[in-house]
Amino acid sequence: MIAACVKYKEAAERDWLEAPMALFDNDRWVGRILLRRNTQYLYTIEAWRDLFASWRNAFIKKRAAGQPLALELDEGRALVERAAELATEREAQSRDVQSLGAHLERLRQSRQNEATRNEAAEAEILLSDGLAKLMARAGPRTNLTRYDKELEVIVDRLAARYGAWYELFPRSMSGDARRHGTFDDVIARLPYLREMGFDVLYMPPIHPIGQTNRKGRNNRLEAGPDDPGSPYAIGSPEGGHTALHRELGDFAAFHRLVDAARDHGIEIALDFAIQCSPDHPWLKEHPEWFDWRPDGTIRFAENPPKRYEDIVNAHFYRDALPGIWLALRDVVLFWIDHGVKIFRVDNPHTKPVPFWEWMIRAVQERHPDAIFLSEAFTRPKMMRKLAKVGFTQSYTYFTWRNTKSELTEYLTELSQTPCQEYLRPNFFVNTPDINPPFLQRGGRAAFIIRAVLAGTLSSLWGMYSGFELCEATPIPGREEYLDSEKYQITAWDWDRPGNIRGIITRLNRIRRDNPALHDWWNLRFHVAHDDGVLFFSKMTAERDNILWVAVNLDPHAVREAVFELPLQELGLGEDAVIEAEELLSAERLRWHGPRQTVQLDPLVNPCMIWRVTPPAR
Amino acid sequence: MIAACVKYKEAAERDWLEAPMALFDNDRWVGRILLRRNTQYLYTIEAWRDLFASWRNAFIKKRAAGQPLALELDEGRALVERAAELATEREAQSRDVQSLGAHLERLRQSRQNEATRNEAAEAEILLSDGLAKLMARAGPRTNLTRYDKELEVIVDRLAARYGAWYELFPRSMSGDARRHGTFDDVIARLPYLREMGFDVLYMPPIHPIGQTNRKGRNNRLEAGPDDPGSPYAIGSPEGGHTALHRELGDFAAFHRLVDAARDHGIEIALDFAIQCSPDHPWLKEHPEWFDWRPDGTIRFAENPPKRYEDIVNAHFYRDALPGIWLALRDVVLFWIDHGVKIFRVDNPHTKPVPFWEWMIRAVQERHPDAIFLSEAFTRPKMMRKLAKVGFTQSYTYFTWRNTKSELTEYLTELSQTPCQEYLRPNFFVNTPDINPPFLQRGGRAAFIIRAVLAGTLSSLWGMYSGFELCEATPIPGREEYLDSEKYQITAWDWDRPGNIRGIITRLNRIRRDNPALHDWWNLRFHVAHDDGVLFFSKMTAERDNILWVAVNLDPHAVREAVFELPLQELGLGEDAVIEAEELLSAERLRWHGPRQTVQLDPLVNPCMIWRVTPPAR
Repeated sequence: MIAACVKYKEAAERDWLEAPMALFDNDRWVGRILLRRNTQYLYTIEAWRDLFASWRNAFIKKRAAGQPLALELDEGRALVERAAELATEREAQSRDVQSLGAHLERLRQSRQNEATRNEAAEAEILLSDGLAKLMARAGPRTNLTRYDKELEVIVDRLAARYGAWYELFPRSMSGDARRHGTFDDVIARLPYLREMGFDVLYMPPIHPIGQTNRKGRNNRLEAGPDDPGSPYAIGSPEGGHTALHRELGDFAAFHRLVDAARDHGIEIALDFAIQCSPDHPWLKEHPEWFDWRPDGTIRFAENPPKRYEDIVNAHFYRDALPGIWLALRDVVLFWIDHGVKIFRVDNPHTKPVPFWEWMIRAVQERHPDAIFLSEAFTRPKMMRKLAKVGFTQSYTYFTWRNTKSELTEYLTELSQTPCQEYLRPNFFVNTPDINPPFLQRGGRAAFIIRAVLAGTLSSLWGMYSGFELCEATPIPGREEYLDSEKYQITAWDWDRPGNIRGIITRLNRIRRDNPALHDWWNLRFHVAHDDGVLFFSKMTAERDNILWVAVNLDPHAVREAVFELPLQELGLGEDAVIEAEELLSAERLRWHGPRQTVQLDPLVNPCMIWRVTPPAR
Repeated sequence: MIAACVKYKEAAERDWLEAPMALFDNDRWVGRILLRRNTQYLYTIEAWRDLFASWRNAFIKKRAAGQPLALELDEGRALVERAAELATEREAQSRDVQSLGAHLERLRQSRQNEATRNEAAEAEILLSDGLAKLMARAGPRTNLTRYDKELEVIVDRLAARYGAWYELFPRSMSGDARRHGTFDDVIARLPYLREMGFDVLYMPPIHPIGQTNRKGRNNRLEAGPDDPGSPYAIGSPEGGHTALHRELGDFAAFHRLVDAARDHGIEIALDFAIQCSPDHPWLKEHPEWFDWRPDGTIRFAENPPKRYEDIVNAHFYRDALPGIWLALRDVVLFWIDHGVKIFRVDNPHTKPVPFWEWMIRAVQERHPDAIFLSEAFTRPKMMRKLAKVGFTQSYTYFTWRNTKSELTEYLTELSQTPCQEYLRPNFFVNTPDINPPFLQRGGRAAFIIRAVLAGTLSSLWGMYSGFELCEATPIPGREEYLDSEKYQITAWDWDRPGNIRGIITRLNRIRRDNPALHDWWNLRFHVAHDDGVLFFSKMTAERDNILWVAVNLDPHAVREAVFELPLQELGLGEDAVIEAEELLSAERLRWHGPRQTVQLDPLVNPCMIWRVTPPAR
């Protein structure tokens, strides 16, 4: 018989803790450890031959078979004696040493007369549950072996896995397209965000914007005199990644915003975009971080034949190592010092993976509550790799998954494969770069459908402002927004007719009230006999919160679908009666049996979210 | 753009060889290496940024887009210059250095007049295929990275994966139950084995048998005066694991057998069983290798409440380390010196896994052609572990897999999961320890069915003598043979009526003639619309040998099953005409289309093996 334990500790601690393991089935063992702190833990496994348990097991069988026991008893006692010696030698807990001694003393007393040996009495002492536990704890670990890897678990805070994000351009928050918005204008928008139930307010870069090759409206190569330029062209003589764009406000204003947001229960997330405007101070201070051409000019960012003349990329090796690594880490630490703990990282897949692994770890060693969202829209293996080396959350392909088969396949991958262990999907319904065709063509129903899908399929979702107003005017034939805020200041009518603020408010409240929606591993798809209708469930591990969700994926047609309610998953038979409340409409209903027909009208109720109450057992 | 290569070498060599890798799809890369020798190889991966390929790729796009090229050309030339410098520095092949220099010289000539720069001529030089190949080979490997593991491949000889084994007790080969058989009697049986097509002759232990607690017939606790005892009770005052049982013959006779077998194309396999009779010389020579009880007696082997009084087990740690490890390795090396290269290892799962890992490696470093068959009938993870640490072949659960679903599930696991990478299944239809109920009850047809299943599902199969005579008399209610040869000498009638020698002969010839049967990874199951009929195919990677096999798993009833011929697998349409030869009967036939009905009569043709010839393209 063997015994095993989990050895574990916080990475920064010296001493290992220990939790017992037990045989689960067929050579699989299970041990449970509780990881309490937001930090990095290490664990490994130790196993050994448990000689006393082996002896005990064999003894019981031999006694039952009527075989001679005297020698067996002597051998059992020898094991206890050896344990007592070792416990004394290594100065184990004195309680254990004493207790082993007490058992041996009782054995000695029952052996005072060898001629009339009382085997039953000896067996009783040696087989006692107390001694079994004592020997399991204090007995020698024969042939001790240890798994040769130390495995790592990172325990994050809840916001790493659950939250609703709202993205806005602060310069568009003045309400007047001719006036540059400020941090104080953003403060004035906080009640609006809070009312809709958002947890994170994310802003594109808020740093000085370069003048050289500044982009004009709609990404034109030449900027007009009043064009503000892309905030992603970071850096000007006024400063770079640790400076504020003057027209947004000073650090006092920024601190006001961080504090006001916190008061509203909202966290600020900043953009961490490594590229520089050609006017960034780093070009002069650290020319060795950049690529210079044979004629002495700098190389602009490019993806041949595309050229991005308003930005240049730093590199990460040669003379830039370690200078730029440290500088970028210090940029993150700088903003943490100014109250920001969440970073949306721009295009991490175009920078070296080892840099992210090092940087995120370096930051989280000091600030384990720092959160990094990877904005990588690239090949699957790179997206996974970034998640694996440390990114807390990841943008996904959700924005382009619209049909039932696309959603089922992709969500199954995210929630049911090993990917779930390290990649937390943040489902953005739109971004300043992505105005999806489904929204361009689907009208108001399409916005409702995508919001409900994002907010229920994943525990993390996000939107870029304008979505709640059903804004989707494209540059014709492209996924780009017309008159994109990336290149100009916009004034929004937040009360635009047809807006879906009310539905988003309800959706985020439903998310908050139902813990089943605070995770994404628990997603399961079920049968709806209609290719245009998605039907899925989420429930808590304790089964005390059960949601069934149906979504009409077709924003243009009423669908009447037959559903197979997942009664079996709840341990219910076919004749079960289920009470449910549809949470978007607050309607209550009762279902008899597993096959039910539901009508989903895109103009009225394209989505339904039922909270299900199974019958009491 | 990145580039990558496989680095590989024989484990004992110092220098790494290199083979290029190419992008296969979606971040998967492929490189091919040819491993020629029967030895252990190591390999790993290196990858780097290929600056010249990146430059070339971008240049072509920019030229197509009509962008300025002068600076680009300068940058391309700079990369070639740098490569030439590095090649000179590290004294690369002079051919490459010269060739890089020649390209640069041509560039210089075309630049003699800066005013009338000929960009087209420069581009032609820099984009030439020759320079691309040269730079791929001799260019700098920027940001070189290497996979941090060195992976191992063991290249075995063909007998590791393909062969038919025959097990016999040499003492039963005299033809007279009152006369102990000898090695010379075994020599006389070799033509019989060779005629049936067996490649390996495996004998249970041939060492001196102990007297203490010797077992009698049918495993009785007391032996009669003439009872020979179990050959697994190894060792007597005459010697142990490196001695021969006197009645079998001396080393001269043993060498005659090894040589005669080789002349017949048969290899001898010996049993490597570590337990000892209490009379084994090691008990006196190395008491520290054994467990002694408090009263000075030795502990017999046991599996409480079962007791094996005729054997004792050595242990492997404490004072037995390293003595017994070295001694056991030397036993194997001893028999290798006497011409034996194949070892069937008795109950390896009851000895420490690290011992096997060390011992097999230690032997194969000197004798890479040594083959070890693991006789572990135990839990799945242990069976896999033993295969993974070095055993060449493994006994399996095949002997107890009879139904269509059992066989399909188990064979899919063995042939289609990662298990295929390290566990080579040797399908024994019976052993001296296993007289399967299917054979006890199924009559002659059952023996044919199991032989054909074993010999076609796996590339390795084996039988214990008597199987070809349809012997299956059990101890009632048990899987044990009555009057087992383990405890007595038996005389066999090799011409017993109803024997299936003819079918086994044909089966082994079919195996030899059809390379599709020399592997087991290539097994695929297909649809037969009958739960009692198994239908599967095997073909070579080159598709020049294609076999379809149908087996009636029910030895008691005629089955007429509809088959779905796997035409698609051969790239054929539904209207294809297939020529086939049924190899057991030598009948030729022609099939039109995918659905065919075949009758399998257990008394006539329980199994069919078709060699399929698809129509010429």
